[in-house]
Amino acid sequence: MKLAVIYDTKTGTTKQAAEWIAEGMQKVSGVEAEAFNIEAVDEEYVKAARGVVIGCPTYAALMTPGMRTWLLESAGKLQMAGKLGGAFATEQYTHGGANLVIQSILTNELVFGMLCYSGGASLGRPVIHIGPVGVNDNMEKFNGMENYKDYFNIYGERFATKAAELFGK
Amino acid sequence: MKLAVIYDTKTGTTKQAAEWIAEGMQKVSGVEAEAFNIEAVDEEYVKAARGVVIGCPTYAALMTPGMRTWLLESAGKLQMAGKLGGAFATEQYTHGGANLVIQSILTNELVFGMLCYSGGASLGRPVIHIGPVGVNDNMEKFNGMENYKDYFNIYGERFATKAAELFGK
Amino acid sequence: MKLAVIYDTKTGTTKQAAEWIAEGMQKVSGVEAEAFNIEAVDEEYVKAARGVVIGCPTYAALMTPGMRTWLLESAGKLQMAGKLGGAFATEQYTHGGANLVIQSILTNELVFGMLCYSGGASLGRPVIHIGPVGVNDNMEKFNGMENYKDYFNIYGERFATKAAELFGK
Amino acid sequence: MKLAVIYDTKTGTTKQAAEWIAEGMQKVSGVEAEAFNIEAVDEEYVKAARGVVIGCPTYAALMTPGMRTWLLESAGKLQMAGKLGGAFATEQYTHGGANLVIQSILTNELVFGMLCYSGGASLGRPVIHIGPVGVNDNMEKFNGMENYKDYFNIYGERFATKAAELFGK
Repeated sequence: MKLAVIYDTKTGTTKQAAEWIAEGMQKVSGVEAEAFNIEAVDEEYVKAARGVVIGCPTYAALMTPGMRTWLLESAGKLQMAGKLGGAFATEQYTHGGANLVIQSILTNELVFGMLCYSGGASLGRPVIHIGPVGVNDNMEKFNGMENYKDYFNIYGERFATKAAELFGK
Repeated sequence: MKLAVIYDTKTGTTKQAAEWIAEGMQKVSGVEAEAFNIEAVDEEYVKAARGVVIGCPTYAALMTPGMRTWLLESAGKLQMAGKLGGAFATEQYTHGGANLVIQSILTNELVFGMLCYSGGASLGRPVIHIGPVGVNDNMEKFNGMENYKDYFNIYGERFATKAAELFGK
Repeated sequence: MKLAVIYDTKTGTTKQAAEWIAEGMQKVSGVEAEAFNIEAVDEEYVKAARGVVIGCPTYAALMTPGMRTWLLESAGKLQMAGKLGGAFATEQYTHGGANLVIQSILTNELVFGMLCYSGGASLGRPVIHIGPVGVNDNMEKFNGMENYKDYFNIYGERFATKAAELFGK
Repeated sequence: MKLAVIYDTKTGTTKQAAEWIAEGMQKVSGVEAEAFNIEAVDEEYVKAARGVVIGCPTYAALMTPGMRTWLLESAGKLQMAGKLGGAFATEQYTHGGANLVIQSILTNELVFGMLCYSGGASLGRPVIHIGPVGVNDNMEKFNGMENYKDYFNIYGERFATKAAELFGK
């Protein structure tokens, strides 16, 4: 089963987070995962994918213009309806508003007819409410976890586990 | 397959919308649907249900205190994780903020570990972005449809169709 | 005192709403008001304005790419900090998500350092929670009011009254 | 000029943040500031205040039931219209959703007819988008600042500076 992560990135931080999510997805048996910049999406791959996680840096507490444009003008042709949908964001400060970006991406995914899923508090620690957030440029630390890498990996693995459960492998 | 609609209501409008959604759900073969006031939820029924739609009137552009309290203090024991989740709201004015209430309910459903779904724009007209909205107390009219009843019915039927597709009957 | 309304528009509906708001603003003594398409903003006028209302059509329950781009790339040079800020949106359906767009615009206005204001429920009927919403393409009707025109006029007048109170004339 | 901070708290973290904001407010000449638990609000003080900052812990990415109830049932009698309004929140994780809580509080403040203000990115570092966020129970660290205390202090001082500018002392 194919899964995709699609991201916009400015400094490389969000790309890094996307790749960590894809890495976590691949821990699930039978799952193939790829991360794509919005400027280089493999359309055939994404059409065939059963789940898509979309992520973006936070600017002024909102998504980037690039992501907003991509969601409206390009994502529509990727047969999103019925796929499992997730979202993540990065921000420079804990008060940056990354959760507002995640909420907006999920809102658009619902309009595409996707099934939105994060796992939330149902899978124990780390609790990930509506999607994972990476803070600042280096992301070397996260509230006592060794670093953000583990955390994005876990989100990816949970997402892939749910996709496998829903759609088989 | 059991599906549930759970609502808070002040004037009876939201109760009416909830019942129309349940009525729509029952149009899908093999689906049993019930609507419950948050004050009288049949816990065993909801635990067994594979999908739950939650709705609320809009007060000051937010959900009611009763719904917020129920979501935090009572919904946790209903084994929400993995169920299909939907949301709706009613408002007194088209600028009341019902979509903000729907977005907040869906946010909490994600934290429960639910799969959120509306169908969005993927199922043709009527397009229902993140969930259905009923405006004002009588709801006798809706943008040229005969009335809101058809519209809540359709949302319920779409939700039940997706639940049946995902979880069988 | 100068006030500005800045809008993106696709079909002309949001332009119409913007002009109705500006018309309402002009009912306040000493107030000059102009409405600008994001593609033709008079920068000197807006820099000198003490209040700005920003509005947009709703696409997939989010603001347009054009508005998102304008907010990030062009609005920053307009000396927004300290100005009174308002927002409005149009949508095709009562469940379109216009309030989500208004909330996002206001969020960005806060990041600009603006003072956000709608009047809310404090000024009697019509209650306008976080900003006015126009539904569908013709906007000839609004919940029993003769049409939306009165309603956008009133919002503009309230906004201008507050700006005059805060900043003098 | 009187300013108030009103908070709900579970573990004492949000109370701590509220007091730090009030402390920052008092750095502005002529400003008197007090922090009140929602269960012990001095109504006469708040009625006389020209600005109110409201804050809350984040539960399941939403505000507490106590805060939602207080906003709807108690805040209405405090003559909120026309006051300067701010918001803050605490969360257990950077992905907890504190910005969603801040956004909801600000939404309700707009409905009260308040003027919402954060300063945003207009006052240099630290940039505080829509309101300050404290993460986890001890709050001893914040992205390289010595601790959160400085940061809540600065928010309070900025808020009070704007209130003094708007309403005199």
